[in-house]
Amino acid sequence: MQFLSDNAARVHPKVWEAMQAADAPQPPYDNDALSREFDARFSALFGRECAAIWVASGTAANCIALSTMVAPHGGVVCHADAHIENDEGGAPGFYLHGAKLLLGGGENAKLTPDSVRAVIEAINPSVHQVQPHAISITQASEAGCVYTPAELAALTGLARERGLKFHVDGARFANAVASLGVSPAEGVGDADALSFGFVKNGGFCSEAIVFFDTGLVEVARYRRKRAGHLQSKGRFLAAQILAMLDNDLWLDNARASNAAAAEIAASAAGRLVNPVEANEVFLRLNADERAILRGQGFSFYDWDETTARIVTAWDTVPEHATALARAIAAL
Amino acid sequence: MQFLSDNAARVHPKVWEAMQAADAPQPPYDNDALSREFDARFSALFGRECAAIWVASGTAANCIALSTMVAPHGGVVCHADAHIENDEGGAPGFYLHGAKLLLGGGENAKLTPDSVRAVIEAINPSVHQVQPHAISITQASEAGCVYTPAELAALTGLARERGLKFHVDGARFANAVASLGVSPAEGVGDADALSFGFVKNGGFCSEAIVFFDTGLVEVARYRRKRAGHLQSKGRFLAAQILAMLDNDLWLDNARASNAAAAEIAASAAGRLVNPVEANEVFLRLNADERAILRGQGFSFYDWDETTARIVTAWDTVPEHATALARAIAAL
Amino acid sequence: MQFLSDNAARVHPKVWEAMQAADAPQPPYDNDALSREFDARFSALFGRECAAIWVASGTAANCIALSTMVAPHGGVVCHADAHIENDEGGAPGFYLHGAKLLLGGGENAKLTPDSVRAVIEAINPSVHQVQPHAISITQASEAGCVYTPAELAALTGLARERGLKFHVDGARFANAVASLGVSPAEGVGDADALSFGFVKNGGFCSEAIVFFDTGLVEVARYRRKRAGHLQSKGRFLAAQILAMLDNDLWLDNARASNAAAAEIAASAAGRLVNPVEANEVFLRLNADERAILRGQGFSFYDWDETTARIVTAWDTVPEHATALARAIAAL
Amino acid sequence: MQFLSDNAARVHPKVWEAMQAADAPQPPYDNDALSREFDARFSALFGRECAAIWVASGTAANCIALSTMVAPHGGVVCHADAHIENDEGGAPGFYLHGAKLLLGGGENAKLTPDSVRAVIEAINPSVHQVQPHAISITQASEAGCVYTPAELAALTGLARERGLKFHVDGARFANAVASLGVSPAEGVGDADALSFGFVKNGGFCSEAIVFFDTGLVEVARYRRKRAGHLQSKGRFLAAQILAMLDNDLWLDNARASNAAAAEIAASAAGRLVNPVEANEVFLRLNADERAILRGQGFSFYDWDETTARIVTAWDTVPEHATALARAIAAL
Repeated sequence: MQFLSDNAARVHPKVWEAMQAADAPQPPYDNDALSREFDARFSALFGRECAAIWVASGTAANCIALSTMVAPHGGVVCHADAHIENDEGGAPGFYLHGAKLLLGGGENAKLTPDSVRAVIEAINPSVHQVQPHAISITQASEAGCVYTPAELAALTGLARERGLKFHVDGARFANAVASLGVSPAEGVGDADALSFGFVKNGGFCSEAIVFFDTGLVEVARYRRKRAGHLQSKGRFLAAQILAMLDNDLWLDNARASNAAAAEIAASAAGRLVNPVEANEVFLRLNADERAILRGQGFSFYDWDETTARIVTAWDTVPEHATALARAIAAL
Repeated sequence: MQFLSDNAARVHPKVWEAMQAADAPQPPYDNDALSREFDARFSALFGRECAAIWVASGTAANCIALSTMVAPHGGVVCHADAHIENDEGGAPGFYLHGAKLLLGGGENAKLTPDSVRAVIEAINPSVHQVQPHAISITQASEAGCVYTPAELAALTGLARERGLKFHVDGARFANAVASLGVSPAEGVGDADALSFGFVKNGGFCSEAIVFFDTGLVEVARYRRKRAGHLQSKGRFLAAQILAMLDNDLWLDNARASNAAAAEIAASAAGRLVNPVEANEVFLRLNADERAILRGQGFSFYDWDETTARIVTAWDTVPEHATALARAIAAL
Repeated sequence: MQFLSDNAARVHPKVWEAMQAADAPQPPYDNDALSREFDARFSALFGRECAAIWVASGTAANCIALSTMVAPHGGVVCHADAHIENDEGGAPGFYLHGAKLLLGGGENAKLTPDSVRAVIEAINPSVHQVQPHAISITQASEAGCVYTPAELAALTGLARERGLKFHVDGARFANAVASLGVSPAEGVGDADALSFGFVKNGGFCSEAIVFFDTGLVEVARYRRKRAGHLQSKGRFLAAQILAMLDNDLWLDNARASNAAAAEIAASAAGRLVNPVEANEVFLRLNADERAILRGQGFSFYDWDETTARIVTAWDTVPEHATALARAIAAL
Repeated sequence: MQFLSDNAARVHPKVWEAMQAADAPQPPYDNDALSREFDARFSALFGRECAAIWVASGTAANCIALSTMVAPHGGVVCHADAHIENDEGGAPGFYLHGAKLLLGGGENAKLTPDSVRAVIEAINPSVHQVQPHAISITQASEAGCVYTPAELAALTGLARERGLKFHVDGARFANAVASLGVSPAEGVGDADALSFGFVKNGGFCSEAIVFFDTGLVEVARYRRKRAGHLQSKGRFLAAQILAMLDNDLWLDNARASNAAAAEIAASAAGRLVNPVEANEVFLRLNADERAILRGQGFSFYDWDETTARIVTAWDTVPEHATALARAIAAL
């Protein structure tokens, strides 16, 4: 009964089908017919003009997106708990050629207008300090929480006011949209680019970078190639994402994942470290309690000494989630 | 009848099977059981201790390998026709942080000890000029030609003598080994690292970097993550390569591909720009001749005004190759 | 009566003399006789084998020194108040090719073994997080405080234990040595490299990077040229530093500067934010008090809303220091 | 009798005077009154709006200028003999974050519209190859030759037509202007930025970057700080250049230098490798001839096996030039 990571989840059968259907000779790189559908498909999904490309990982998606917004001498305001700060092995330093992450605070791993202003206003506007060029948030956040449309509007409004670009790391964007019950457009707000995650949600090896500021995509295409991320058999990466978009499979998968997390959270109200608004449950569990759960066959991640992380996925077996909920309640 | 690119070829059924067999929850990144087999499997293949990792593209394989050998202030001696110089969108500049490609000559896109010495000896050994840190060759070369074991030994000997590391871009290493009729170890010689290509040869999205200087792999692991190339569902990338190694599928595929190229070459002896020693045929064809072939249903690439490039693949239909051979002979 | 910055101080007459004496045709870059004296002169000063080069700024000295110690995928542990973090316009990101500064705490802008361990031990030793490659401290610190030999030994011992290189930013190293009353060797401890500042202390445009791990200097020479810091008339930069070393002018200048700071500090005991151990005095002064002092002709820097910074220099007029001390006492 | 390098020349007395006059406390970095005169002084000199900053070396000037024009994924068209390609220790790779130099030909180390077009048109306009973002020429060229206003116009016109920025490396711009007998504006044409050299021409450690596209200067200011080139006592760098501009000292010095070269060239007409249009004389001299000249007390640089380089400077003693001219004639 696996609750370790949605990265460990299986690939959805529709994704396998789509990849195999794409297995015929086609022009290499992104010159195939499937890759060429991207702009139209994402434009339809978001109800506005988009330009979109695929890459193989969330780290690449985030960093290539940011590389179109931030000069090497600039900086990116992000939360101190952000994935780009903590979990990408320094990839932003590499892709942004030494640009700096400017760390802000906020509950539930979410930036707020106040926390962003605190970062920006502490920076002396001179060449001696690195100036912000962009803001990056994570939707859903690293604490498994979501930004509401109103919260997004406040942040993107601040970005516009200060002349900053706005990026959304959407490794779990599907979970956020499903949780909020809003349209994809409302879930991303007035961002310039979104790293739209599919791998954790039933995909194989393909994430989308969706540019709402479509002028940025040309640079992104060059940066993708330059990073070795323009795969030669790109048709298979395109196929995965198109399959996920068909009939809103991405949303169905996220809803399943969120439902499992909600069931577990409901059983553990007094133990929750953060509100459970997506597919991650951070629980206060002591060592004895963890041992008991593991003894019952549940695997999960030790976040820190007092907190365990439970992650559900599109393929979490409902009976497993129910069993875990009961086991936690019984502690 | 497609002779455009081996990148356009299909994925081998055994590779599909292996990926689907890997579709069960496993630890993410490269902590899965399949990825952990790499070192042993490549050590067995090469008959010496190896450390090996997967990445999704040949560009990433080349550049990550080189990044373990070349400091940002150093340079890489390579042929002026090398893929890293001409076709990777500046990726070496990115991965090597501004290190320089130092271009040499040689027939058939192959460096020679003399051409390497000419490059090195023209460099003033002072801080005013970029000093070589490594040599990189391509096996089979960009002209579809192979280095013999003796040629390799001369080049790697020169590298050792000058204190330079040695890298082999083996995007078509399988074709080279099949063509030479030697062991994999003989096909790579005393190199420090090999980019061992599988994608063009029946794979999907996975290439290996094989380190013979195993001390280099630790840095490579960090650089892979930092480049966004440590995919979360890495088990699928490992599965592809292991399937290709099983029962020497990689060699069988390469032999099929080479045989098709040889048949075409045999029909076009007077037109060959380079010896055909792998799966690429560079032919002198004028515009009228190309139009005739295309009119008969053959697709291929215009290399330059006088030369067309025919590429065969593991899945080239033998009847198509025969048909093309006859059509060329009939021109 | 200027207490704004020691960067605003004059050039010492002996430095002018030495530069003018060097104004005869000599080989360019660092091939002149004066530059060639560096290793011997610094080896004599520190009583151990050193290799030393000049550069034009403290930022360049720090970053070139660190570039010999830290790979692009690594990190540098430094204090959150460090100059390299706050005041170099992102230069470490540039020179270290995206390596990361890993920020620690400690009173008076000084790292401690505990604060360093807290940084290091919070890092997961995996490719997902940036690993430390070096520690950098500032002697005297950004708060105007010094590390004692015992404090240095504890930090360098920790560095050795963890396999980390050790760098000292000595923009005000002379003030630290003068304050501690120790030898230069004791003032830097078992470091691998020291950025030895002269510009704030009576120089013009020349700082030294002194390598105690002499194997690092070769890379530093290449990095200096590559950064455009190998000036063609380098003899003038060498001359400045040699003049400062002659008869311990660097120590005399630092003592004068420290004495002026001590006099001011003595008048302001209740207002000191940090101990005054070099040539900087951080004072609690409210807006009215600042206005009074400025009205009396004293210029200084507003550190933040509650703190003002007074900096003395080698050329601070003793009567000005006395006048300021009295004015503060009279507030 | 020194003809090795104009880098070995002395500092002009007026430059010393100006530096010493600047030796009073002033705001650090470039906040001093002298640095603030730059824009106005260069605007007056070129008769158009300019924004100008100082840096300490020609390498830094070239690379910082180019860093405002060329993205990390782009390239710079320059001559294969260009200083940025051959003599800056890979600094363009560092400052441009891995951007590529795209090498063209042309006699006398001068690009021509045809040679630039040959470079550009060989590049496939796709992400697989590095696209040109700028052109850089050297005035006077590395062969000691000058671009006429008409030649400049043809090149800058081509740049505009192709959407490329245009940079001029003017390490010996003074010599070029003096030689052409044109205004400074005519000597640089419709460039976007000029590295205006002073060090070889009587300065100490200060070169100007003059932006005619004044929008580029803001990025240059950040890049200068980030490279450690914003010296704290910048007033001394500003003073040097202002002294050189006063009463056209820069032109007087260049005329003296050119005259000495012309005298030598006149004596050696049959031996000239290139036309002598500035202060460099490339002469065919065999080993015996070189030995004779050196035996007579003349020092100079061996360019290659058949060519020696004679460089004159502002302070070349006229009698030495005459003596060398006679000695060559007598060979």
